[in-house]
Amino acid sequence: MKKMIIASTSTVFGSGYLDYLLPTLELHFKGVKTLTFIPYARPGGISYDEYTSIVKKAFSIINIDVKGIHEFKNSKEAVLNAEAIFTGGGNTFELVNQLYKNDVLAILKQVLEKGTPYLGTSAGSNICGVDMKNTNDMPIVYPPSFITLGCIPFNINAHYLDPVAGSTHMGETRETRIKEFHVFNETAVLGLREGSWLSVENEKITLQGKHTARLFQQNKKPLELESGVVVTL
Amino acid sequence: MKKMIIASTSTVFGSGYLDYLLPTLELHFKGVKTLTFIPYARPGGISYDEYTSIVKKAFSIINIDVKGIHEFKNSKEAVLNAEAIFTGGGNTFELVNQLYKNDVLAILKQVLEKGTPYLGTSAGSNICGVDMKNTNDMPIVYPPSFITLGCIPFNINAHYLDPVAGSTHMGETRETRIKEFHVFNETAVLGLREGSWLSVENEKITLQGKHTARLFQQNKKPLELESGVVVTL
Repeated sequence: MKKMIIASTSTVFGSGYLDYLLPTLELHFKGVKTLTFIPYARPGGISYDEYTSIVKKAFSIINIDVKGIHEFKNSKEAVLNAEAIFTGGGNTFELVNQLYKNDVLAILKQVLEKGTPYLGTSAGSNICGVDMKNTNDMPIVYPPSFITLGCIPFNINAHYLDPVAGSTHMGETRETRIKEFHVFNETAVLGLREGSWLSVENEKITLQGKHTARLFQQNKKPLELESGVVVTL
Repeated sequence: MKKMIIASTSTVFGSGYLDYLLPTLELHFKGVKTLTFIPYARPGGISYDEYTSIVKKAFSIINIDVKGIHEFKNSKEAVLNAEAIFTGGGNTFELVNQLYKNDVLAILKQVLEKGTPYLGTSAGSNICGVDMKNTNDMPIVYPPSFITLGCIPFNINAHYLDPVAGSTHMGETRETRIKEFHVFNETAVLGLREGSWLSVENEKITLQGKHTARLFQQNKKPLELESGVVVTL
């Protein structure tokens, strides 16, 4: 019964917040009056209120009201009773930290498995995977665990970037980092480029958007998946 | 009595492993016959033996023999009795994980405070700071803690990169990430560009190499430090 959109980014270059996704979200959240927003990832360290007001503005275009999870007395009940849920991007370490601190990870998984419509962008997409071990974020806080929702059977690398041809920088490429991950872990990783998203209908996971995505599996050559294909491991 | 070199990278573009640092290392490690190498960070997932042989080859040029910490029966005694120590780059999460698992973090701090000459590059430099919360690495393993050596009173961001002018990528810049860090933490952060290093003589920390470095302090404007200056907070 899962009904999720797992997007690489909230914003593509040159357009406004969530703009490129709005037509998709209008269908995805059809009939939803109020969406519950999880602002824990705090991009740029902005407050929960500031972040929620940005999201409120974007969703007003498709006539959906937005309420931040922090505005509810009881965060677990907020998740349990939500018509729809959106977890925004920012820092994945702080997001996961707060999901544990507020004890909402298990209940979030439960309602998503039961079919509450969900949107994740960036950090909010990373948490849909088995664990957060493929985030690009800086570990600015120490969460109690790296284990996340496991609503899909692989991990997400959001904002996936191809190696830069002719770069003189000696830091690791994204592909090298994911290969290092596979020395220690078996979980597959999907590199989602900005402008791509996954549409999850129950166990069917479809790649959407204008780019291919790069699938990394342990001891296998990476695969480029075309937009429109069902992702299978 | 500290005597440390804390370098942004082992390798600058277009030259061999440690090449640019060798003249400095020859002076720094004067009189040292055998250096103990900590290969725990495993760049690209290579084995401890493979990594140690790369380091052995580089140090042979300045007539220093190299032995990997994994070749000793007792890792704590290896650190305690080392003439000199080098921790190489790779993945900071795995490096810190193994320092805890092998229970050598405390003894490493102890010998460094007492004056055992040290070289760190990249991940091996990150661990010299208060904690590893400013690494750029992917969290491919979950270490028991993010707390590191604290041999210097601030954190290192190795391979520091300036924002790319005209970039269309929506992932955070390095500066944005460090600003987010300062929403949650007070520790200062020094962005060390590739080709720069810190020379630590007891409590005196001097910036070396051909680049400026960028110092980030909570609630202050970032500062560009010139090469040759003593770093003070």
